[in-house]
Amino acid sequence: MTAGTVYLVGAGPGAPDLLTIRAAEVLKRADIVFHDALVHPETIALAARAECVAVGKRSGRHSTAQRFINKRLIDAARKVAVVVRLKGGDPMLFGRAQEEIAALEAAGVEYEVVPGVTAACAASAELGVSLTQRGLARSVVFLTPRVGEGEKPNEWAKTAATADTVVIYMGAGQAEAIASALIAHGVEPGTPAIVTENASLPEARTFGMTLRELPMLAELSLTGPALITIGEVYRERVAKCAVARAKARCA
Amino acid sequence: MTAGTVYLVGAGPGAPDLLTIRAAEVLKRADIVFHDALVHPETIALAARAECVAVGKRSGRHSTAQRFINKRLIDAARKVAVVVRLKGGDPMLFGRAQEEIAALEAAGVEYEVVPGVTAACAASAELGVSLTQRGLARSVVFLTPRVGEGEKPNEWAKTAATADTVVIYMGAGQAEAIASALIAHGVEPGTPAIVTENASLPEARTFGMTLRELPMLAELSLTGPALITIGEVYRERVAKCAVARAKARCA
Repeated sequence: MTAGTVYLVGAGPGAPDLLTIRAAEVLKRADIVFHDALVHPETIALAARAECVAVGKRSGRHSTAQRFINKRLIDAARKVAVVVRLKGGDPMLFGRAQEEIAALEAAGVEYEVVPGVTAACAASAELGVSLTQRGLARSVVFLTPRVGEGEKPNEWAKTAATADTVVIYMGAGQAEAIASALIAHGVEPGTPAIVTENASLPEARTFGMTLRELPMLAELSLTGPALITIGEVYRERVAKCAVARAKARCA
Repeated sequence: MTAGTVYLVGAGPGAPDLLTIRAAEVLKRADIVFHDALVHPETIALAARAECVAVGKRSGRHSTAQRFINKRLIDAARKVAVVVRLKGGDPMLFGRAQEEIAALEAAGVEYEVVPGVTAACAASAELGVSLTQRGLARSVVFLTPRVGEGEKPNEWAKTAATADTVVIYMGAGQAEAIASALIAHGVEPGTPAIVTENASLPEARTFGMTLRELPMLAELSLTGPALITIGEVYRERVAKCAVARAKARCA
């Protein structure tokens, strides 16, 4: 018999005011919050009466093993009423929510998912460029090229090569491999690409380039989470940027 | 010389408390709000001191022509300080924001985009099924199959056929054509599919089926906006549903 409900809550892309009203209200009622490392301190501070526990996950380094997080959520739900698992962005997009949901269901723990604004939407707002555009981009694919267990390498590139707009999460560390795979799958090397670091935060930076130039990412000393977006929709925006070859930042 | 700023604001998927804090604050300061027909009345009511103008757009019927909306935004920004264009979901995903941004830029009007929670994330929260899943779904494509001017028919199906998870916006009226095109492009007819109507609202309904059965959508008398999601991630969820063949609603 469990006492509590686990809320899997999307913290949004970074800026504290891009949290939803529902998420803010759940946080205010929380007894305990398990949060990703990248969630903004002001967002965590909303959980005024809660114990707050960082459970790592920053750029793929899993400070806390997923299985251990699952166990802590279940244990907490057996003790208190409102347990929050606070994740960057939206829980259902690259958030590994399913592993937590499966564990909660198996343990008979009630849960609820509170959606959030995903990084791609925040980066698009920042750029002033829509992911879809009438007559130009009818499809947008969100993917992460990290190769997991039992997955075919570069299968993702095939999907990306046919989509109008491509959004790559957690790919900044593999820029060269991404560019090679996409070009090998027939994407034009001159296709415009934008890298947005720390979307929605005051320290946000935007870099415009072409797919061919994507490997320069390694030289940009990115420190925050970065989103790579590729497609014809970015042509005008990249042209407006300061010369990418000189590694200049977009205006 | 313009007086005001135009805020392109995402109203989120439907439920008023899935609005972001930033969007709520912009609405409170608004002098005039041009809103889509589907935005929740409680969300519009946040704009307490604003004139509110419905500019249509419901299920693709454009009650107000885009060009006329653009003109009204520019005219308003020449008269008042805070002009809001309030759109369902996120402005940069199937929101036609680019046409408004281009018009505003051409007229020298300041603008800002406030991102929102898109319907796919709200539907996933409702379903308890993540769009991406470790080892099962690494890519998700968002698309709308509506055929516009100058676009190749069924090009979208090629992209959808290679993605792990497919999310179709504004496709409920073309369920048969969607199923045919995907099956023709090699998607297994038995692939699980879910239709979520009115995601995030109290009247939300969920229907589980297979891709082959998608044409039954025509018989479901859907009245609200519906999202079609297709992929292996839904297999367990569809199996849990009441028998789809009898047009029963998911539990």
